Amino acid sequence: MKKILIIGIGPGDPRHVTLEAIEALNRVDVFFVLEKGAVKRDMVALRHEILQRFATGRPHRVVEAPSPPRERTPADYLACVDDLNRDKQAAFERMIVGELGEGQCGGILAWGDPALYDSTIRNVEAIAARNGLEIEVIPGISAIQVLAARHRITLNRIGQSVHITTGRRLAEGWPEAADSVVVMLDGEETYNRFADQDVEIYWGAYLGTQDEILIAGRLKEVVAEINRRRAAARAAKGWIMDTYLMRRV
Amino acid sequence: MKKILIIGIGPGDPRHVTLEAIEALNRVDVFFVLEKGAVKRDMVALRHEILQRFATGRPHRVVEAPSPPRERTPADYLACVDDLNRDKQAAFERMIVGELGEGQCGGILAWGDPALYDSTIRNVEAIAARNGLEIEVIPGISAIQVLAARHRITLNRIGQSVHITTGRRLAEGWPEAADSVVVMLDGEETYNRFADQDVEIYWGAYLGTQDEILIAGRLKEVVAEINRRRAAARAAKGWIMDTYLMRRV
Repeated sequence: MKKILIIGIGPGDPRHVTLEAIEALNRVDVFFVLEKGAVKRDMVALRHEILQRFATGRPHRVVEAPSPPRERTPADYLACVDDLNRDKQAAFERMIVGELGEGQCGGILAWGDPALYDSTIRNVEAIAARNGLEIEVIPGISAIQVLAARHRITLNRIGQSVHITTGRRLAEGWPEAADSVVVMLDGEETYNRFADQDVEIYWGAYLGTQDEILIAGRLKEVVAEINRRRAAARAAKGWIMDTYLMRRV
Repeated sequence: MKKILIIGIGPGDPRHVTLEAIEALNRVDVFFVLEKGAVKRDMVALRHEILQRFATGRPHRVVEAPSPPRERTPADYLACVDDLNRDKQAAFERMIVGELGEGQCGGILAWGDPALYDSTIRNVEAIAARNGLEIEVIPGISAIQVLAARHRITLNRIGQSVHITTGRRLAEGWPEAADSVVVMLDGEETYNRFADQDVEIYWGAYLGTQDEILIAGRLKEVVAEINRRRAAARAAKGWIMDTYLMRRV
């Protein structure tokens, strides 16, 4: 039987890796990687560092394929994600079928936690259904958790709920029944829509890395600073990953 | 300056500890512990194991105080939580003020992630405001993440939101605008209220421990099994910690 380990490695700091993840890294014969292109060179370097530091217990190979391009501003988001995932699935499937021998263990590293806004589990489950693979998932620290830790806050207020959503959904309005709202995958600075309301924000970018930026306060008082620093960091590095928590005060 | 590290240690498996947490454990001079009484003897043993295995880099002391009792079925939940937190705060404050020397580093272990339904950060912030402490928070793997990993699912569906809430809030009805609903702190088997609806559930108890139980499926088809195994496990061990994800299908 072939096996695939989907290993959460945290959002950026190698120290966020768990002992379970390190054990898993050392069971892998072949790591499968979708290259993200020049923009995310920093993340590729970090992935290499994690393998070099932790996957030292046995020989392993790294098999890479180019990551399918993602359309920047798709008219139909779901269809676009479907297309992208189908392409990613096909790329992973070619690598796994071609490179993983009988009885071998494959590994795929997932940024943050593979359980949150990550297609790896879904894609590998589909591949497994066609090819008879065993799958094991190793949870990892998510960017949201580092955000909360760095700001020294809890995600929830006492006895209240936490709503995790995307920038795209948040653009439809403040989620009903949500007390604390955590936003991931927001390329559009959607928090600006609530800057005229009594909302506090805890914002973070490049969480867990040396470039980490943290800003918190009343949204109307800090929104200009977030916009300015976000734009500057994005221009300087060529990419940005940020997440934030908002709640009404 | 005195410092307190609030260290997330995951939900039960010592292997869920991160390298950052292990580094933090080895900076601590004095660990402060609120004893939970006989019921959670298993968790005390696990905490001891974590200190014994990982906090080996320097001498440390462990200072314990009895945890304030929690009223089982309070008429006013928020007031009760307030009382409990005030009592916990007072207990931590007595220990920290009495036992932590100038320039020393104190440590408090938090199950799972201190950012989710845990009063430690709030309590220590209040103590710090009165006594001038520095605080650092180390994120930990939460039970929710282990739940998702073990069931090999993502918490969200593609592009959808995740609503994390309590059994108490879920009893008020299915949260509006929520796609996937994750429930923590449910002592009342509140999922039963939705057993007549088209809902799937991914349930787990004692996640990350040797007693782990996992059940998943259409709620109406598995609800009796969950109730039965939950009651049996609770009777056998004297306590249960469980969490689950539900979504409409």
